[in-house]
Amino acid sequence: MFRTHTCGELRLTNTGKNVTLSGWVQRIRDKGTLLWIDLRDRYGITQLFLEEGKTPPEFIELARSFGREFVISATGVVAERESKNPNIPTGEIEVRITGLKLLNASKLPPFTIEDKSDGGDELRMKYRYLDLRRNPLKNNLELRHRIALETRNYLDSQGFYEIETPYLIKSTPEGARDFVVPSRMNPGEFYALPQSPQTFKQILMVAGYDRYFQIVRCFRDEDLRADRQPEFTQIDCEMAFVDQEDVLNTFEGLARFLFSKVKGVDVGPFERMDYATAMKLYGSDKPDLRFGMPFVELNDLTKDKGFSVFDEAELVVGINVAGCSEYTRKQLDALTDFVKKPQIGAKGLVYVKYNTDGSLKSSVDKFFTEEDLKSWAVRLDSRPGDLLLILSGKTDATRKQLGELRLEMGNQLGMRDPQVFKPLWVTDFPLLEWSEEAQRFFAMHHPFTSPKPEDVHMLDSDPGKARANAYDMVINGVEVGGGSIRIHNRELQKRMFTLLGFTDEEALNQFGFLLNAFEYGAPPHGGIALGFDRLTALIAGFDSIRDFIAFPKNNSGRDVMIDSPSVIAQHQLDELSLKVTVEKK
Amino acid sequence: MFRTHTCGELRLTNTGKNVTLSGWVQRIRDKGTLLWIDLRDRYGITQLFLEEGKTPPEFIELARSFGREFVISATGVVAERESKNPNIPTGEIEVRITGLKLLNASKLPPFTIEDKSDGGDELRMKYRYLDLRRNPLKNNLELRHRIALETRNYLDSQGFYEIETPYLIKSTPEGARDFVVPSRMNPGEFYALPQSPQTFKQILMVAGYDRYFQIVRCFRDEDLRADRQPEFTQIDCEMAFVDQEDVLNTFEGLARFLFSKVKGVDVGPFERMDYATAMKLYGSDKPDLRFGMPFVELNDLTKDKGFSVFDEAELVVGINVAGCSEYTRKQLDALTDFVKKPQIGAKGLVYVKYNTDGSLKSSVDKFFTEEDLKSWAVRLDSRPGDLLLILSGKTDATRKQLGELRLEMGNQLGMRDPQVFKPLWVTDFPLLEWSEEAQRFFAMHHPFTSPKPEDVHMLDSDPGKARANAYDMVINGVEVGGGSIRIHNRELQKRMFTLLGFTDEEALNQFGFLLNAFEYGAPPHGGIALGFDRLTALIAGFDSIRDFIAFPKNNSGRDVMIDSPSVIAQHQLDELSLKVTVEKK
Repeated sequence: MFRTHTCGELRLTNTGKNVTLSGWVQRIRDKGTLLWIDLRDRYGITQLFLEEGKTPPEFIELARSFGREFVISATGVVAERESKNPNIPTGEIEVRITGLKLLNASKLPPFTIEDKSDGGDELRMKYRYLDLRRNPLKNNLELRHRIALETRNYLDSQGFYEIETPYLIKSTPEGARDFVVPSRMNPGEFYALPQSPQTFKQILMVAGYDRYFQIVRCFRDEDLRADRQPEFTQIDCEMAFVDQEDVLNTFEGLARFLFSKVKGVDVGPFERMDYATAMKLYGSDKPDLRFGMPFVELNDLTKDKGFSVFDEAELVVGINVAGCSEYTRKQLDALTDFVKKPQIGAKGLVYVKYNTDGSLKSSVDKFFTEEDLKSWAVRLDSRPGDLLLILSGKTDATRKQLGELRLEMGNQLGMRDPQVFKPLWVTDFPLLEWSEEAQRFFAMHHPFTSPKPEDVHMLDSDPGKARANAYDMVINGVEVGGGSIRIHNRELQKRMFTLLGFTDEEALNQFGFLLNAFEYGAPPHGGIALGFDRLTALIAGFDSIRDFIAFPKNNSGRDVMIDSPSVIAQHQLDELSLKVTVEKK
Repeated sequence: MFRTHTCGELRLTNTGKNVTLSGWVQRIRDKGTLLWIDLRDRYGITQLFLEEGKTPPEFIELARSFGREFVISATGVVAERESKNPNIPTGEIEVRITGLKLLNASKLPPFTIEDKSDGGDELRMKYRYLDLRRNPLKNNLELRHRIALETRNYLDSQGFYEIETPYLIKSTPEGARDFVVPSRMNPGEFYALPQSPQTFKQILMVAGYDRYFQIVRCFRDEDLRADRQPEFTQIDCEMAFVDQEDVLNTFEGLARFLFSKVKGVDVGPFERMDYATAMKLYGSDKPDLRFGMPFVELNDLTKDKGFSVFDEAELVVGINVAGCSEYTRKQLDALTDFVKKPQIGAKGLVYVKYNTDGSLKSSVDKFFTEEDLKSWAVRLDSRPGDLLLILSGKTDATRKQLGELRLEMGNQLGMRDPQVFKPLWVTDFPLLEWSEEAQRFFAMHHPFTSPKPEDVHMLDSDPGKARANAYDMVINGVEVGGGSIRIHNRELQKRMFTLLGFTDEEALNQFGFLLNAFEYGAPPHGGIALGFDRLTALIAGFDSIRDFIAFPKNNSGRDVMIDSPSVIAQHQLDELSLKVTVEKK
């Protein structure tokens, strides 16, 4: 037997007990006649104690041969410590060794196994099994396990069945790029890995399953931006006989339950905001509501004063940054540089300092009187001591730029505390977006999203204006998930495909099974998918998902630990009737 | 709102209540002035009632336009039925219609949506969304959901974390054939889909996670035998600091918990049997213990009586079939035909009838006296009225043949009741098996399985004889899962790879990350993987797994509903730097 207890469970009440523990050597202190070993496992750390004259000498000798991360098994008697450690639950006891065994030696790890590691990213990824030993990662994966389990139990309690859908499905051109899987038994043909189980969950609604969920892996072969993974996990859900309100309430319930259960936080009822308002007030379809600074439009107040930049702008819009009128020239220049970065793309930044003495000073004093500036301040609800930041230009672009600036100000002013949570639903997304590049409409959510009934008539007259029964769950400026009420009518679905540029033949070839299913009694239905990696990181209070995934890939889609992808054998290619058209080094 | 209640919940206590229900039309009975609709959803069936003169005429007209599987919504008042149906929970009430709405029409389904469908297999697969509406499939998927949830909660209560491992991994030549996934970002290179998360779960043990599980999809590109699927689901588990006994007890605990929780059956403690005994007594490494009929060897009693078939046989072995001495000539001929089928491959069958009058009559009376036959009967513990069935030949082949015959007799005598459960552990499997074809050893379980410590010395002298710390969970003759204690020592693992014909370079190239991990403090560990599709079918009392999978593939690996696999676009191939070397029609 390797152990009677774990390294996290012995207490003073166990004093005198004979125990066996196994684990990793975290640290050894050798004070000549006395020797301590901190033994670590998943459950905690327990101090082992050896003493010359009392502990059999062969064990002292053995202990002196141990190094960091050696795996050992130790038997001994639980005793009260002389100097207690109040920081760990086992800190009042130690185990006085009567037996000791080396289970496996360890080379010196290439970085320290401590909460703050000294290893760089690539090294930590290559030796992921060592990185995963560190407490922060262990806590992340435990949290992930806990959230998955609680999600399942909650949805079960709400009448949802978890139903597994296939991973080997069919490639479809709409949406992101598919990963494909050549079929040996059907030469020249390919499966695709699912970008989401969308059509299958709709089929399950047609099949009468009423409430479906699945915590499921999804795959997208996209060029990886930072913090995107080619495979990621979704909490995928669908419900029949519901309208938007039912879906929102159900998953607001889930999210509030999770925050309360695993985090002990009541995030309160979710705010609701339609897409148009979110764009107008925050320049984003995922506004961070941990702080205010809503946009205020100033076109009418800035017009015809001789400042051509504003006069020619479609939109002049500002935010009020409280208490920042004392920003220095350097700080203001830095903000101007920030908005002029290519990723943001503004041409310049106008500021107005509303000084504590009541005077106003701006970067456009040449064109505007103090009275003009005062009128802006009034509209922005500014007070003496505040700073007004104003951008102008094309409406959509300017809003996006000011949205970025608003977030930056939130960061600078410490108003984005990761342990504060402000959830909201953004609703009434546009159904379609026009692609200048492709010169056609794309579905903003996906091709199965239902237009709002009152907007269906626009599909002929002005499709770009039609709103969808689509919604996003947004927390702290992060899109946690999104969903929609779906089309359940064959004719409407065909019309959507036509709008998206499918020929009838293409639509039938790709989605014929769904169109057919709609003819055999398809109920009204809708659902949502939440990004599970993202949700877990968010609940933990982190931005990056990478350390919430046990074995993530790097930005080139490689798993550097196992060194994958890799070349395969010629006979594998032959069996698959495939030829590689590039030279591999 | 589509409904206030489901179709399964209204009772007499709801009488007088105004309700709205939605669902599918299961059946309409039109008796002129009276009209009944059976409305179905996932939760049950509720009778709707319409009456000329009382129900508004437009709803009666609308109802007459409905057909089977139409989706409708109905509002009305709950009332006590005149003629009650004791067979369904809602059978005492009906809903008297005050409002009725068609939500979606339905074409006539190509087969009936009843417990016993009239649809053939291919048709049912093509219209899977209709097949899934039938109660038997719905019950199967609900059971599957329930078992998954209970498994997770049980393993969580035992300190296991569910940790997701990647689906895009690396192709390895050992084991079955991999499905591969071309990487666009790494041209000419491929990921592979996991046949199991084996190496990742071992890495998690090295990383200190102590107890891991995952209900996870696995992939094998094998030629599909009946009831095999290219993708299947495993309950995959691993534990550190354990020996075999710990693993067996933990998962015996899980299995007993599941049977008790979802089936209400206490299957009792598992029997244990080593591989050698299972082969000797039942000719199978997965004996069905719902009935006896153990093998009894007769070489010494049959020797030198002039029957050359027995004299030249390595093994003469029989079973006693109780109460079958009256089998007719025709029945006995059929048994002979059975064992001579090519899949079984015996040359012939010897029988002895131990008649109720105490006399003995055999198919080899020419060579053996009644006293000889009596001595066989004594050894086989036969009684008057029994039938002895005897095969002979090469040991392994004969055992296998008699094993098949024993199962056939179990079937014929109704001793294999699918609602009776006899679980056992088969232990001490051989470590390796010799392949005549490849002229090398293969791992019987997998290359990471540890030899029994007392057999390690045989790896040099007689590797084929070494036994492994490997075990299978067998229930009713079905291998539900298997596992082993793993190697956790780099040198021993390298030695195994060498035995399996890997060069050092190949071993490093394929499994270098694992060999390296073993050098950084790898704990002793072991685990198991249970076939989740199989386990679910077994608990339900079924042989075939297909109707326990929502969207299975057919025997050519095709999903006939979505028509996949399929050809992909040329630009997809180009992006992947691939060329298909066969002509597609």
